[in-house]
Amino acid sequence: MHDEKILKVLRSSPGEYVSSDELCKDAGISRAAIWKRMESLRAEGYEIEASPHLGYRLISSPDTLIPDEIKWKLKSRVFGSNILSYKKVDSTNDVAYSLAEKGMKEGTVILAEEQAAGKGRLGRKWSSPAKGGIYMSCILRPDIAPNEIPRITLFAAVAVAKAIREFSGLAPEIKWPNDILINGRKVVGILTEMKADQDAVNFVVVGIGVNVNTPSESLPRAATSLKEEFSRSGSVTDLSRIDLARKMLERLDIEYALLKKKGFSPIIEEWKALSNIIGSRVKVMTHSRTFEAQAHDIDQDGSLVVRRERGQMEKISSGDIIIME
Amino acid sequence: MHDEKILKVLRSSPGEYVSSDELCKDAGISRAAIWKRMESLRAEGYEIEASPHLGYRLISSPDTLIPDEIKWKLKSRVFGSNILSYKKVDSTNDVAYSLAEKGMKEGTVILAEEQAAGKGRLGRKWSSPAKGGIYMSCILRPDIAPNEIPRITLFAAVAVAKAIREFSGLAPEIKWPNDILINGRKVVGILTEMKADQDAVNFVVVGIGVNVNTPSESLPRAATSLKEEFSRSGSVTDLSRIDLARKMLERLDIEYALLKKKGFSPIIEEWKALSNIIGSRVKVMTHSRTFEAQAHDIDQDGSLVVRRERGQMEKISSGDIIIME
Repeated sequence: MHDEKILKVLRSSPGEYVSSDELCKDAGISRAAIWKRMESLRAEGYEIEASPHLGYRLISSPDTLIPDEIKWKLKSRVFGSNILSYKKVDSTNDVAYSLAEKGMKEGTVILAEEQAAGKGRLGRKWSSPAKGGIYMSCILRPDIAPNEIPRITLFAAVAVAKAIREFSGLAPEIKWPNDILINGRKVVGILTEMKADQDAVNFVVVGIGVNVNTPSESLPRAATSLKEEFSRSGSVTDLSRIDLARKMLERLDIEYALLKKKGFSPIIEEWKALSNIIGSRVKVMTHSRTFEAQAHDIDQDGSLVVRRERGQMEKISSGDIIIME
Repeated sequence: MHDEKILKVLRSSPGEYVSSDELCKDAGISRAAIWKRMESLRAEGYEIEASPHLGYRLISSPDTLIPDEIKWKLKSRVFGSNILSYKKVDSTNDVAYSLAEKGMKEGTVILAEEQAAGKGRLGRKWSSPAKGGIYMSCILRPDIAPNEIPRITLFAAVAVAKAIREFSGLAPEIKWPNDILINGRKVVGILTEMKADQDAVNFVVVGIGVNVNTPSESLPRAATSLKEEFSRSGSVTDLSRIDLARKMLERLDIEYALLKKKGFSPIIEEWKALSNIIGSRVKVMTHSRTFEAQAHDIDQDGSLVVRRERGQMEKISSGDIIIME
């Protein structure tokens, strides 16, 4: 199994050799066990150099969503306090929902390398091929009423957009309510699910799917990946999913604390600054109607306010929009 | 086990004897099996008279919430199309929620004679002693957005209040959002729980607890039972829980069809006609504030509109009220 003690010792001397003696002492293992453990780390994808005289040094870590790798240097209080990572699940949201029902604590994060039945909004699928994406679901237990759920949806969109901007230098834009686009193509989808009664939300699962290094041939036409957008600037290497996952958890943590402390208004302002739709002509599709209008504002409960043809304003609390050219 | 075939034949001749020959033919069983089956029905609480020459006749059925008893003569399309009945569960809402997650169809009803951990609103317990109460949870799959959940809560309150009025002749009053009182004391509680994502409700579980014959010593002080209120008019016999459960399912069915066909407005009008609070001075308790105001109206999303001291109106979407004397 994954050997966090050895990794800790190797990481504590970045790029340098650690002698076998030191390893035995600091990781508390026998000299005879070292070789076997190094082999199992290599099998996990760690590149470790061995020298008969100098000892061992860590060259690189695999970009697998291993909890210990993400937790390494993770600066967050709530998000990622507990991380469960899977090779493949039907849906990280379903796993998280079921754990939340059993009482799993706020901040628990479910990760998967691949989803067999990734879920998108409005009953759609979320394309979730192995290698290349981050499929993450977070359990939250906010003290809100069920009609305040857009707060969670919008806060998550803001946090993830900012994390991507900080991580990649790219300029993500939010499309109401919570798609994240780069150069007009979708790179992140967010699906918020909850258990609630008439008075209060019991728990929320925020599912976030990010196309990081996902090859474009495994994505829908309207989607893109961070790698693809990043490569326009010349670079073509894979991006570190571990680093991005960590950055996302940290940003979610900061914005969630802000939401709790200062309420929803600052989130709306950030959302608007990151959004590409205010002022645009949009086609609005709710579950009962489709019409064109002008996107006017986001109001205090997270609804989209649109201006209809004759100047009347209308609030849209759930649905989908297409930005018209 | 419960023998529906024999019961059907006995019921088809109310108060009259059915010969053994007829029973064998109509219920499709052997003569030798009749006696044993009659014994097991008696053990369930059916009173069956046997005469060597005339055959058998059904004198009375037990007031146990047996699915077949409730379905007998049940006139409903959705509610009760599937009924599962338990002697004792922790919470009928929990059972229904878990079945709904597994895909159980709309209209499925869970009943229990007793709840070990009956749930009320706002994290409270719902006192659920054996014998005397109806503890019922219904699975619904309405096509609504999560912020429309008060529609379900209010429709259920209207349906149950009307069912009780029709069944008992008593005058139930609804206290916002969905307690039902008789002579100022609580006789019904409703707890609506849902699974939803940001766009749509996946399913709703409507839990309804009714104190029918429940002895007052097993109820909280502010509660009463239908039997207790009914006995003020002189009668002291137990009320038929089977008949009331059937009436409730029928009324829920009618009002749900109305909600689907005509929208929420007629429900609000009925709710107001049954409500005791419009115009009253109330103490409002939300999860963050407590204040006094005048109950002014119920608006189109089911929120309570109150008038504050200086005349300002305020919408309360969830919380609790106390009617001030």
